[in-house]
Amino acid sequence: MDSPAPPPLAGVLETALYVDDMARARAFYETVLGLAPMFEDARLTAYPVGPRSALLLFLRGATTETVHLPGDMGEIPPHDGAGPLHCALAVAEADLPGWEARLAAHGVAVEARTHWPRGSTSVYFRDPDGHLMEFATPKLWPVW
Amino acid sequence: MDSPAPPPLAGVLETALYVDDMARARAFYETVLGLAPMFEDARLTAYPVGPRSALLLFLRGATTETVHLPGDMGEIPPHDGAGPLHCALAVAEADLPGWEARLAAHGVAVEARTHWPRGSTSVYFRDPDGHLMEFATPKLWPVW
Repeated sequence: MDSPAPPPLAGVLETALYVDDMARARAFYETVLGLAPMFEDARLTAYPVGPRSALLLFLRGATTETVHLPGDMGEIPPHDGAGPLHCALAVAEADLPGWEARLAAHGVAVEARTHWPRGSTSVYFRDPDGHLMEFATPKLWPVW
Repeated sequence: MDSPAPPPLAGVLETALYVDDMARARAFYETVLGLAPMFEDARLTAYPVGPRSALLLFLRGATTETVHLPGDMGEIPPHDGAGPLHCALAVAEADLPGWEARLAAHGVAVEARTHWPRGSTSVYFRDPDGHLMEFATPKLWPVW
């Protein structure tokens, strides 16, 4: 089907991970990564990351039913996730040593490193649910 | 453990979804959402979204082994995912009608809408793997 050019997208706003123990996950994201929640309830902890992205931690199994919001607010459809998902966080090259030191100080192992052809470095580690997290320095992609 | 303030994070760089049929998924993300790959192989299609985020489609099951990169490049640890994951895309309020028209033109149903207290609107739809996608207009979060 021919169709006109799509409207612009400003970016990925929300990235969702699913966790088995919200308190354990929060301890990691807030103590090790230093994130501060902008919303929290039993189902969801939402963190701002940089100027225009949000990392959402959902309690696994708590999002499998439609949420009917009050009044005319509408509904949030079900979603859920399993498996060790992947998420990369953008860090300046000058900040990578500080992040590695911070992981070490908190006993978080670096699982692997990659050195990309354009000059970027990736450092991989796991969150308490086994999700594969990555610190990625610039030049990994045209967008970073 | 006390520790100094963490270095900054520039944002979530990579958001990963896992798909059962890469050709089917690509048809959706490229034809309906109008994304253009910046990398593609049998395992991964990577799309830039806005100025500083990337949406990664991984073929489900193709990322469960460590990838050993050539030479001294290093390794990419395993990850994988199941379930209808969630991902939100930031769109300007003025662009939301155009996006809704584009979904309709391609036969993609809007599953729900939410009207948030601060003035944002969310429009929810599914990709071919059942992932819950969202167009979110500004004022949903302090970061958008």
